[in-house]
Amino acid sequence: VGVEQLSIFLENKSGGLADVIDVLARRGINLRALSVADEADFGILRLIVDDTEGALAALKEAGAVARRTSVVAVEVPDRPGGLAGVLAALRAAAINVEYMYAFPVKSGEAAVVVFRFDDEPAAVAALRAAGARFLEARDVQRS
Amino acid sequence: VGVEQLSIFLENKSGGLADVIDVLARRGINLRALSVADEADFGILRLIVDDTEGALAALKEAGAVARRTSVVAVEVPDRPGGLAGVLAALRAAAINVEYMYAFPVKSGEAAVVVFRFDDEPAAVAALRAAGARFLEARDVQRS
Amino acid sequence: VGVEQLSIFLENKSGGLADVIDVLARRGINLRALSVADEADFGILRLIVDDTEGALAALKEAGAVARRTSVVAVEVPDRPGGLAGVLAALRAAAINVEYMYAFPVKSGEAAVVVFRFDDEPAAVAALRAAGARFLEARDVQRS
Amino acid sequence: VGVEQLSIFLENKSGGLADVIDVLARRGINLRALSVADEADFGILRLIVDDTEGALAALKEAGAVARRTSVVAVEVPDRPGGLAGVLAALRAAAINVEYMYAFPVKSGEAAVVVFRFDDEPAAVAALRAAGARFLEARDVQRS
Repeated sequence: VGVEQLSIFLENKSGGLADVIDVLARRGINLRALSVADEADFGILRLIVDDTEGALAALKEAGAVARRTSVVAVEVPDRPGGLAGVLAALRAAAINVEYMYAFPVKSGEAAVVVFRFDDEPAAVAALRAAGARFLEARDVQRS
Repeated sequence: VGVEQLSIFLENKSGGLADVIDVLARRGINLRALSVADEADFGILRLIVDDTEGALAALKEAGAVARRTSVVAVEVPDRPGGLAGVLAALRAAAINVEYMYAFPVKSGEAAVVVFRFDDEPAAVAALRAAGARFLEARDVQRS
Repeated sequence: VGVEQLSIFLENKSGGLADVIDVLARRGINLRALSVADEADFGILRLIVDDTEGALAALKEAGAVARRTSVVAVEVPDRPGGLAGVLAALRAAAINVEYMYAFPVKSGEAAVVVFRFDDEPAAVAALRAAGARFLEARDVQRS
Repeated sequence: VGVEQLSIFLENKSGGLADVIDVLARRGINLRALSVADEADFGILRLIVDDTEGALAALKEAGAVARRTSVVAVEVPDRPGGLAGVLAALRAAAINVEYMYAFPVKSGEAAVVVFRFDDEPAAVAALRAAGARFLEARDVQRS
């Protein structure tokens, strides 16, 4: 049930970010979710796009350092306590969350949160046992 | 035009995350945007909520280390190139982006991206000159 | 063979760093190794001191958020290739390094490097099989 | 008074670290100081070496993403309170420390700490006014 994320290294945060997003825009690739983590000297841009292959090809052609990572996109009931229930299931199974960010496309009455786990199979099993619903690759990628 | 963000220190990533989100859910506080950055030993949860004062009070009562930070939420035309235009304006003004993440509530035809800047007044001036529209505190906080 | 490290959360990097180091200096606690990792809004100070218990007590009394973590201090022959050999042994055993920094006290002809591993027992076994020598807690703590 | 540091991007932490250190060892380049910061998906290796030009050339030839950054190496009296005095001077001048780590070569009775500052000229002025002594590039680079 994993969804593909691109992790892109930014040597120069502001200029690098503009360049990467511009490369993707010129190819007509849509951004579905994004997050920028920073260290003092570098940045990491994490993206979910509607055409991962096309984005990777365009980025490599432009000389960017990018790689694909598997993440899990979980639908979270959009009410107070919705996310608390998901996190309680992960804690009960002693699952470590590496990082997480919101996926800004609503799917019906649910919000979607993207998780990166140390141990993705165990996390997916725990979430499934708790009745969680997942966004699938086909919900994210263009057909 | 800044929006208030809470930065919350997580001593134990998975358990700490579940505890913080649970504290807020019990008070009926809604999460508007969230992102978790991680170091190897700790995590930082960044949240935008609909009741910042109430969330801070609840978190301090629960013993969490939280503080408020000003961020800028920018509406981005929801089409390829929408974000590229915003980033080009920031680059032209030599504005440094510390970090950024998506705000998962659509406002009409626009997506919203949250930015943390080194120099917020200069960033806001550059964005305004480029015709950007901002989400205001009143769009985020409950009335 | 683990050595104890203190991980201390810095809400305000510069002021917080000065406060923490001052608290320890007033108690006569010696710093053996240190490193400061940073995120945009917070910092993490990692310390090895000669009196871990005393440092923890002093920090908690001063209201700091600190916790103990186990790290491994490895003697590295102080010549080109010395560290390469240690890292080759870790790579051959598929051991993940979470972070690492130098320990600035020489022990004879060797330099000392501090490692934080995901899986410390596996890392120690791999290093021992490769003939590595470890700094022990008794080499670091005051008697 | 700045000293040159190399910041090297590690796409794969353990393997990448071993490769980089091996490339330098084969050229006979000595490591004077090192630190590895980590994000969940990538790492950043910070090095001070005795031949910065040679190291950069070797790394680029090997396909690594590396760049040079200016840092300040300050001698710190090697007794409790030595570092506290240096940090108090920085705090009094409202200087922000981006990150810091120990330089593992003693120079007489002093330890040496490497600082990365936002505003290096202001930091150097404040340290100089407080009587700090600096390690110079000629103390680090081979003649």
